[in-house]
Amino acid sequence: MSCGTELVLAFEDPLTYLPRKPIQEFGRREVIYDRQHPCPGLYVVIMGRVKVTTSSDGFETIGRIVSSEGLFGESALIGARDRVESAVALDPTSVMCWTRTDIEEQIEREPRLGLALSQYLVRQCIELQERIESMAVHKTPHRVMLALLQLAGSVGVPMADGSTRIGSLTHVTIAEYVGTSREIVTFQMNRLRRMGLLRYSRKAIDIYEPAMQKAFREQDINSTQPPRVVASQMAALAEL
Amino acid sequence: MSCGTELVLAFEDPLTYLPRKPIQEFGRREVIYDRQHPCPGLYVVIMGRVKVTTSSDGFETIGRIVSSEGLFGESALIGARDRVESAVALDPTSVMCWTRTDIEEQIEREPRLGLALSQYLVRQCIELQERIESMAVHKTPHRVMLALLQLAGSVGVPMADGSTRIGSLTHVTIAEYVGTSREIVTFQMNRLRRMGLLRYSRKAIDIYEPAMQKAFREQDINSTQPPRVVASQMAALAEL
Repeated sequence: MSCGTELVLAFEDPLTYLPRKPIQEFGRREVIYDRQHPCPGLYVVIMGRVKVTTSSDGFETIGRIVSSEGLFGESALIGARDRVESAVALDPTSVMCWTRTDIEEQIEREPRLGLALSQYLVRQCIELQERIESMAVHKTPHRVMLALLQLAGSVGVPMADGSTRIGSLTHVTIAEYVGTSREIVTFQMNRLRRMGLLRYSRKAIDIYEPAMQKAFREQDINSTQPPRVVASQMAALAEL
Repeated sequence: MSCGTELVLAFEDPLTYLPRKPIQEFGRREVIYDRQHPCPGLYVVIMGRVKVTTSSDGFETIGRIVSSEGLFGESALIGARDRVESAVALDPTSVMCWTRTDIEEQIEREPRLGLALSQYLVRQCIELQERIESMAVHKTPHRVMLALLQLAGSVGVPMADGSTRIGSLTHVTIAEYVGTSREIVTFQMNRLRRMGLLRYSRKAIDIYEPAMQKAFREQDINSTQPPRVVASQMAALAEL
């Protein structure tokens, strides 16, 4: 999302209004919650990164990567027990957790928490909406670029050479985020590396944001979906 | 979404806590807000239906259809002025609107409004997430079926013959909801009509939900995306 400073200051931070809770620590790849251990409440990431995925018809799809100060587990606020969501630590991670009752009681004491949470969730809805748009409008190679740009914006750290560093993410995790296969992500990451738009190792992905944005815009002019009618209509007919 | 009664009762309704406002009336196809008339606040639909769409790179994508008691315009809560969203009445429609300041003041007076809004937004996030999953997991023909089932669940009315009636929606609107082209929607709607799963006219779409759910599940077993690797990898390579 491209938010100016003005916008960043224009909403409340839920963390300001949440009482302290004991810190829980999770090792790399450790499960925070899943089908067997349902989500007990709203979490905040203190340190590290968490991958949140939902399962649909038995296999994992779309993930969200939550880093420091990000919230997850918000479906606990409505007790959505028929929803299978899991959260796994990507790094050594520490979190705090508030049950639905904690949140309800705190909102009674501190009404601005309700406003702050609503604003946080509106931003999350916009981010999800943007991902839907990306899926509807862009073809897979552009969706991989867009996902990397989004991740750079949300969990990236600026480096001395002007690149933005995203801590190590497997191609499977990126594929879950994009909504495509691991093979396509690997193919596209190689292509972007050859184009000099990123560098990656097992430790990190360094993205040259302005160059990637430029390449994204340039390629996009030539290949945004409409006239997607042609390609996807053929595909839809072929799928029958 | 498949929510049991238990879940439906498990969260607060924001409308309980919002003060009355003057009712605004809009004719069919009339613009409620758009690029030229930015969204002034959070709306509720009193009567009728509203189509909310966002523009990305100049053309409209994914819409949401909001019916009686549904909220829209929530991005006004964070003042997302860089976001181009528009809302158009699909039927003769009446709405109420609260500015961001109205909402903030009301949350101070009535903290449970903040909780209710948060819960409403969590449900909206889940719905968006499910649409992302649908796009990642299902092929277009199934996404059309799923969209019709979702619309039946959210804006449909049960009929005497066991079908669920969705008031008239153009194929363009359904295409925007699915994230595909009008042509594909027309093709698929015809196919579903031939299969006896729906009936449609300019006035309404009647969906035989149980039969469509059954067809969806049966076809789905044979065609869910993984091994989407094959089809979409070929497509991604072809797109280079």
